[in-house]
Amino acid sequence: MRFSDAWRACVGTGRMDLALRRDYQDSLALIQREIGFRHIRGHGLFSDGMGIHRPFRHLEQEHVRYSFTYLDQVVDAYLELGIRPFLELGFMPSGLASGDQTVFWWRGNVTPPRSWRAWADLVRATVTHLVDRYGLDEVRGWPIEVWNEPNLTQFWQGADADAYYRLYQVSAEAIKEVDAQLRVGGPAISPGADEWLERFADFVIGHDVPIDFVSRHAYTSGPARHVPFGSRQRLAPASRLLDQFALPRKQLAGTPLADLPVHITEFNSSYCPDNPIHDTAFQAAYLAPVVAAGGDPADSFSYWTFSDVFEEADVPTELFHGGFGLLTHRQIKKPAFHLYAFVARMGDRFLSRGPDHLITTDADGRVTVLAWAPVDHTGAGRSPRTHNLRFSVPVDAPAAFLLRSTVDEEHGNAFAAWQEMGRPPSPLPRQFDTLREAAEPARSHRRLPVRDGRVDMEIALARHEVTLLEITPVTGSAPPWWDDDDLLDGPS
Amino acid sequence: MRFSDAWRACVGTGRMDLALRRDYQDSLALIQREIGFRHIRGHGLFSDGMGIHRPFRHLEQEHVRYSFTYLDQVVDAYLELGIRPFLELGFMPSGLASGDQTVFWWRGNVTPPRSWRAWADLVRATVTHLVDRYGLDEVRGWPIEVWNEPNLTQFWQGADADAYYRLYQVSAEAIKEVDAQLRVGGPAISPGADEWLERFADFVIGHDVPIDFVSRHAYTSGPARHVPFGSRQRLAPASRLLDQFALPRKQLAGTPLADLPVHITEFNSSYCPDNPIHDTAFQAAYLAPVVAAGGDPADSFSYWTFSDVFEEADVPTELFHGGFGLLTHRQIKKPAFHLYAFVARMGDRFLSRGPDHLITTDADGRVTVLAWAPVDHTGAGRSPRTHNLRFSVPVDAPAAFLLRSTVDEEHGNAFAAWQEMGRPPSPLPRQFDTLREAAEPARSHRRLPVRDGRVDMEIALARHEVTLLEITPVTGSAPPWWDDDDLLDGPS
Amino acid sequence: MRFSDAWRACVGTGRMDLALRRDYQDSLALIQREIGFRHIRGHGLFSDGMGIHRPFRHLEQEHVRYSFTYLDQVVDAYLELGIRPFLELGFMPSGLASGDQTVFWWRGNVTPPRSWRAWADLVRATVTHLVDRYGLDEVRGWPIEVWNEPNLTQFWQGADADAYYRLYQVSAEAIKEVDAQLRVGGPAISPGADEWLERFADFVIGHDVPIDFVSRHAYTSGPARHVPFGSRQRLAPASRLLDQFALPRKQLAGTPLADLPVHITEFNSSYCPDNPIHDTAFQAAYLAPVVAAGGDPADSFSYWTFSDVFEEADVPTELFHGGFGLLTHRQIKKPAFHLYAFVARMGDRFLSRGPDHLITTDADGRVTVLAWAPVDHTGAGRSPRTHNLRFSVPVDAPAAFLLRSTVDEEHGNAFAAWQEMGRPPSPLPRQFDTLREAAEPARSHRRLPVRDGRVDMEIALARHEVTLLEITPVTGSAPPWWDDDDLLDGPS
Amino acid sequence: MRFSDAWRACVGTGRMDLALRRDYQDSLALIQREIGFRHIRGHGLFSDGMGIHRPFRHLEQEHVRYSFTYLDQVVDAYLELGIRPFLELGFMPSGLASGDQTVFWWRGNVTPPRSWRAWADLVRATVTHLVDRYGLDEVRGWPIEVWNEPNLTQFWQGADADAYYRLYQVSAEAIKEVDAQLRVGGPAISPGADEWLERFADFVIGHDVPIDFVSRHAYTSGPARHVPFGSRQRLAPASRLLDQFALPRKQLAGTPLADLPVHITEFNSSYCPDNPIHDTAFQAAYLAPVVAAGGDPADSFSYWTFSDVFEEADVPTELFHGGFGLLTHRQIKKPAFHLYAFVARMGDRFLSRGPDHLITTDADGRVTVLAWAPVDHTGAGRSPRTHNLRFSVPVDAPAAFLLRSTVDEEHGNAFAAWQEMGRPPSPLPRQFDTLREAAEPARSHRRLPVRDGRVDMEIALARHEVTLLEITPVTGSAPPWWDDDDLLDGPS
Repeated sequence: MRFSDAWRACVGTGRMDLALRRDYQDSLALIQREIGFRHIRGHGLFSDGMGIHRPFRHLEQEHVRYSFTYLDQVVDAYLELGIRPFLELGFMPSGLASGDQTVFWWRGNVTPPRSWRAWADLVRATVTHLVDRYGLDEVRGWPIEVWNEPNLTQFWQGADADAYYRLYQVSAEAIKEVDAQLRVGGPAISPGADEWLERFADFVIGHDVPIDFVSRHAYTSGPARHVPFGSRQRLAPASRLLDQFALPRKQLAGTPLADLPVHITEFNSSYCPDNPIHDTAFQAAYLAPVVAAGGDPADSFSYWTFSDVFEEADVPTELFHGGFGLLTHRQIKKPAFHLYAFVARMGDRFLSRGPDHLITTDADGRVTVLAWAPVDHTGAGRSPRTHNLRFSVPVDAPAAFLLRSTVDEEHGNAFAAWQEMGRPPSPLPRQFDTLREAAEPARSHRRLPVRDGRVDMEIALARHEVTLLEITPVTGSAPPWWDDDDLLDGPS
Repeated sequence: MRFSDAWRACVGTGRMDLALRRDYQDSLALIQREIGFRHIRGHGLFSDGMGIHRPFRHLEQEHVRYSFTYLDQVVDAYLELGIRPFLELGFMPSGLASGDQTVFWWRGNVTPPRSWRAWADLVRATVTHLVDRYGLDEVRGWPIEVWNEPNLTQFWQGADADAYYRLYQVSAEAIKEVDAQLRVGGPAISPGADEWLERFADFVIGHDVPIDFVSRHAYTSGPARHVPFGSRQRLAPASRLLDQFALPRKQLAGTPLADLPVHITEFNSSYCPDNPIHDTAFQAAYLAPVVAAGGDPADSFSYWTFSDVFEEADVPTELFHGGFGLLTHRQIKKPAFHLYAFVARMGDRFLSRGPDHLITTDADGRVTVLAWAPVDHTGAGRSPRTHNLRFSVPVDAPAAFLLRSTVDEEHGNAFAAWQEMGRPPSPLPRQFDTLREAAEPARSHRRLPVRDGRVDMEIALARHEVTLLEITPVTGSAPPWWDDDDLLDGPS
Repeated sequence: MRFSDAWRACVGTGRMDLALRRDYQDSLALIQREIGFRHIRGHGLFSDGMGIHRPFRHLEQEHVRYSFTYLDQVVDAYLELGIRPFLELGFMPSGLASGDQTVFWWRGNVTPPRSWRAWADLVRATVTHLVDRYGLDEVRGWPIEVWNEPNLTQFWQGADADAYYRLYQVSAEAIKEVDAQLRVGGPAISPGADEWLERFADFVIGHDVPIDFVSRHAYTSGPARHVPFGSRQRLAPASRLLDQFALPRKQLAGTPLADLPVHITEFNSSYCPDNPIHDTAFQAAYLAPVVAAGGDPADSFSYWTFSDVFEEADVPTELFHGGFGLLTHRQIKKPAFHLYAFVARMGDRFLSRGPDHLITTDADGRVTVLAWAPVDHTGAGRSPRTHNLRFSVPVDAPAAFLLRSTVDEEHGNAFAAWQEMGRPPSPLPRQFDTLREAAEPARSHRRLPVRDGRVDMEIALARHEVTLLEITPVTGSAPPWWDDDDLLDGPS
Repeated sequence: MRFSDAWRACVGTGRMDLALRRDYQDSLALIQREIGFRHIRGHGLFSDGMGIHRPFRHLEQEHVRYSFTYLDQVVDAYLELGIRPFLELGFMPSGLASGDQTVFWWRGNVTPPRSWRAWADLVRATVTHLVDRYGLDEVRGWPIEVWNEPNLTQFWQGADADAYYRLYQVSAEAIKEVDAQLRVGGPAISPGADEWLERFADFVIGHDVPIDFVSRHAYTSGPARHVPFGSRQRLAPASRLLDQFALPRKQLAGTPLADLPVHITEFNSSYCPDNPIHDTAFQAAYLAPVVAAGGDPADSFSYWTFSDVFEEADVPTELFHGGFGLLTHRQIKKPAFHLYAFVARMGDRFLSRGPDHLITTDADGRVTVLAWAPVDHTGAGRSPRTHNLRFSVPVDAPAAFLLRSTVDEEHGNAFAAWQEMGRPPSPLPRQFDTLREAAEPARSHRRLPVRDGRVDMEIALARHEVTLLEITPVTGSAPPWWDDDDLLDGPS
């Protein structure tokens, strides 16, 4: 049985033009080297910073030029780094907006288009350009999602469902005009508006509107208490994320959309970009069972976001500021990064799963165990100090080699080191070196005995620990004349 | 006699946070590799995109946090690339602004601070941070200029001279509080307001305000005629640039400021970021005498700007859009780039200069001749088709080797190739390859005879040609048994 | 009709352990970036420098350890650079040799093995190791050739055919024991021993020995006249190379081996590693018709060699020393490099071929013309000074863009520049920069009119010129309001 | 008081032409990035592999061409990597040798020159070339040592002292002819021939031969017991190395050479390139007191060697083969690497030293403690299992941050992991990744209390542990409104 790699199908990102930055690209390069996601999704494709929609007047007439200077730079960089766009159509270019309402520090306009035809032109021109530049085969592999969280008034003026249906229909039809096999979907709703999906499904079924996938988001945080430069929230148990992942298939069961792929196009614990929980070992241990099991209910679930290069609330003021990123600015790895990097080193064959572990293997007989300490979601300080775990795995060799990589409150935890260092807001180069070292998981290794074709182990997990055990068959040995017991035993 | 390298003392750049971009840094790396400027100056240090000034409320009180997350990234990148900041204090962070007036597409606020003390705090905190991070010795080498073109209403609310004097005084004093040897100057005026410099000098002299250099800008273009995505302007002769460079020393002669360094902190032909003249061979030939002679009247003269990564008017819509850059997006070299790259290959010892050439040599006896065809500034089409030039240079060797590098209407001219290619707005990778090849100067080489210790040459220059002749002494020769006449003369 | 890419199927290299060098790998990286060969073949896999065969005594007994420390480094580097080994089994490790005879400065032992079983063990162990490390699918794609030029006494003791047959049989059987789909062939003979192929074919057919391809070499140079650090030879016409390429198919016609792939595992004009002809423009023009047509008679023809990092005669004493390389040490491109780089830019669809040109196109409608000046093989100085060529090609667009890249006696000819510079044996960094610039082809570009769907051109070729014309359809144009005629026509 | 950085003055290397290899250069790049030596010294400058001395006949006469093709590549690479040559003149080019005796697998000829004048020419030509290429100022900084271990018959035919004196004199005079400020020295003797130094001193004093420094080597291993692919030796206590370092100053006290710099141009525990002790944690702990104190008795002491890219005995057959390197092939760090990398992170101000530790500080108040567990040199298995150490250091801040980096039998010990993995001779890429992770030191960090301006600590060291403690002053803290105790305490 294959271990689903839905966990790597997609990852989230800050607004599209941030992809022009070097820090962003350096971070994405590291992410791709050590994790390797397939798609990347974020807001702002049509926002003014990308400079695509460019109206002008000439001889007393309105015209539009479409400009792909930045889009090409972004997509070229993505493809160079081995990742593909999961396109999100939005927000509204100011030259096409019907109102002034914006979202975020960077002012994404969230009003409907002044002209539906002009919106269709924009979508068609953009998709056509991408097909021309990257080839139809390539672009057919890029899902296209219409807008973001239209169920929220801050993201879509008035959270007007009818306006969203129209936007969806106009967009989907414009895309299919370019090529019928391009893939379009929605409605990209936030949690707390589950009924939107059913009503949206009724609409597309009833009006025979093209749809190739459905999408929604998942978060487990409650309302936020704000302090300067930070938010605090209570969390629901992590299992609620899996519940949210599972909901679309339940809702669509029995409808003509029942077999569509379900993409969770954003998920995280907290939806606030300044909640320090994102920086902690708790976050990794809390999400471990979700990453280990999310591939069952959904076709993808996209961690929001790969990097702290992100400016929705504002420009961050400190290295650790509670950003969504798996990496901070300048690529300090957070514990959640390691959760993903650990899963990326697992085998493609599923062996077993439990409430605190996942076991896989691969064609070479390497066995990998991802284990995590259960957390108390009501307060990180209340999570158990230690947790024991026992397992037995098959090894087809006379002995095995174990490499263990550990992240917990003390190891692989640059946030803890940064606090101990006195929270330097923009660390000096030497401090970055220290943080980089502190961010690496603790590693240990030893020889394991194999008995009756199995390795039996019991391990202890510290508070908020996530650990990866890589168990590889050992066949070689020292030659018979070789004696390592005392290398200093020369002739006298 | 040394050939002044004031031409490389400084170069201009788009707003500071563009320095976070990869395309920008790739471009700057190329510029530094092939030209090598010492300082870089641009707007926007204190604008919101840099995120430095961060007011917040806590316990019913206003506070400010200063954040250097982005500033550190920018300055680190500069120093890595071997270039140092020429700091410009401005524009006004919105949290400190007294009004709403902004300049540029990216909305730099140009109003005085609400609180002069808060501005002084901001300046002091920023300079202190830089000293802490980069060391006092380093930062003492970075000139600090107060604001930009305060004589223009679009850059300084009401072009209010008294408000500028206050801004200057508050800033200069804040800087000197950090360290008395830090260098501060102004008034960074645009052409057309020459009297501002004298009045500013009166003010600083009269009030005994610290000043370490004076600065102004120089352009030769007249008013602009706009077409969609472009501007057209008439130009004055290039010698007017040298006149403008020379003015501050004239104006300050006899005053206590007479010996201060004079920095031309911006210069170009056209001041419009969408005037195609910047992309042409004309531009290189027009500016050649200025770059060759500008070091006499000024201590620096800063080409505005090194790269088309620049967003003052808007996001550019085509690869060649008349931007200020020596390089386009993605590093296509323009003719003006080569002008600088040619000068960067010249020797450090001045031999002679004429209206169409400059000759230098170096410790190795290499002689370099920069030659340019005179242009008709009233219309590029009226420049002479050909221009002859004769010279004689000393060579201390039995023979010489000549390498000639040429830029003109047909060579080293990617803009011409791009037009012939049908003006692809965002070229495909293969088209970029072609443009990169078309952007390289034509090269030719040959052996030159040396007679009586001199090489005498006559060369013909094509329209708008700028050419570099590198003449190196030749001593080696083929060994006596070696015959290159017919390599195919083996035994039969 | 497809244009065969047999020209890129393989390239030659100096002995295998030279692949450990940085200069070698830098050169190969450049070759792969601008040309892109599929396989690489050279001598010395089993020679002592690779350290594979390692006999030792323990407890009074002889043992062998096989060590792949260097082999892994070499093959890893090849695969990283996108090229695969074309393995050549040889020469004899000294621990396995039956005699002392060596070839080359680096002393490759050319005697039969002391023990045929030990040779089989060595072959089997090596191939098994490669399969274990790189996977069976990968290694099945690497042809394995048995020895090199066994028909010459300097390469195979006594040029003993029977001993070679045994070597071939033992090797082939050892390989097939590892996997039946691995590909083995021979006899890798030099020119001047054509009958060897037929006798070898009789042997393998008669003894039912496995064979998957046949191989031979091709050169057109006569005996050498030596001067210090150089050789001079007469050449046959280049068409003789094509004759040699064609011979195996002729010889095997009607035999059971008739359909086997034919690999020309070495070819060049001169077989001397110190013949300056390799460095000249003559070489490129001489070989152009061979590269353009060699794919008809043979499945591959491997230019001997990609780089001057090569030590058969000795360590080279000057930058240009007549080495086989397409590149000199430190990657100066020779004219023959450009011949290959030009062909690498041609389309995959054959349009036409003549005695002085080859025309192709591709799916995008880009037409490429490779043209070359005919040479006088009896003396480079007797080749015609100029040669005219006329052609007509289809272009499906209102206009076309032409990019022409030229190599001849004066352009793209670093050897000529190096001679003019006084032949610096190990140039200074600045001289290398000059050579690098002199080595680039001359480029020119212009707009071409299209009439009745065709472009008609007449071009003149200089002595020894090889030129590439890239003709691309042009569709875009300046917008109607845009006037490039005089960019300086602003408002007065 | 300054902490001497004599430990970084020089490092040893395998024969000079190995520097052409990519693995070598990659290793040196890593060494320079994480340690940073100033000079590099190895054998083989004049051996045939470097191709410098090139005799030829022309018109019945003998001539010599000197060729610097490879020397330039090597020295260019060194300078690029920020390291300078410590030149060793030797061995004898075969074209100049008076006999056949060679040393090493790579056959360095160790006989005197056939012609002393020809040797002087070779030395003069080589030094002149270096001065021409790199400049006199640069080359004056490169010590030049005459030959290697002439006291041993395997390195200098007959260990003939008189012949060495002549070689020294001829060489020194040839060097001084080029420039009087170039620095020359000798006699580069091995341990066990201490009297050679005094006799050599007598000779140079008596004959007024130029000398700028004296040099010798230091090793502590006894005779070797050989097993296949390995050697075993007993060691003297490490303090004997310091004794050997100190001997030249003692021997020369009172002579005119008393004030000359003393360079220990090679040192290590074992002098065998296949003794596994080099790969162990024992090696690091054994040498720690030597590296910590060696700067007192000597001006430099050069670890023999930086990398396992080394072929004196033969091509290594396994990744860990007991080579001298701080790094294995492909850059796996050995424990001794970390000893040096730790010292490289220490401050430049000496605080104190003891039998198990060294304490330094720097201008920023950062305190670094290098501590090591005492070893039993008679048998690694007899070293104590644990060792406690107590110290008190000044910290001028309310708190301190501690980063501890540890290497011992289990941490930072890739050799141990490689044994547990079954000793893969040429590991697969994934195994290399594991070894790279296992090779990193264990890191831990915490906040330390400061009392009365001091931090007092007691630490326990494991067997063969070498540990680096970096203690930095902490000033920052969380803002008053910030509470990290429970990040999950949001509004209910």
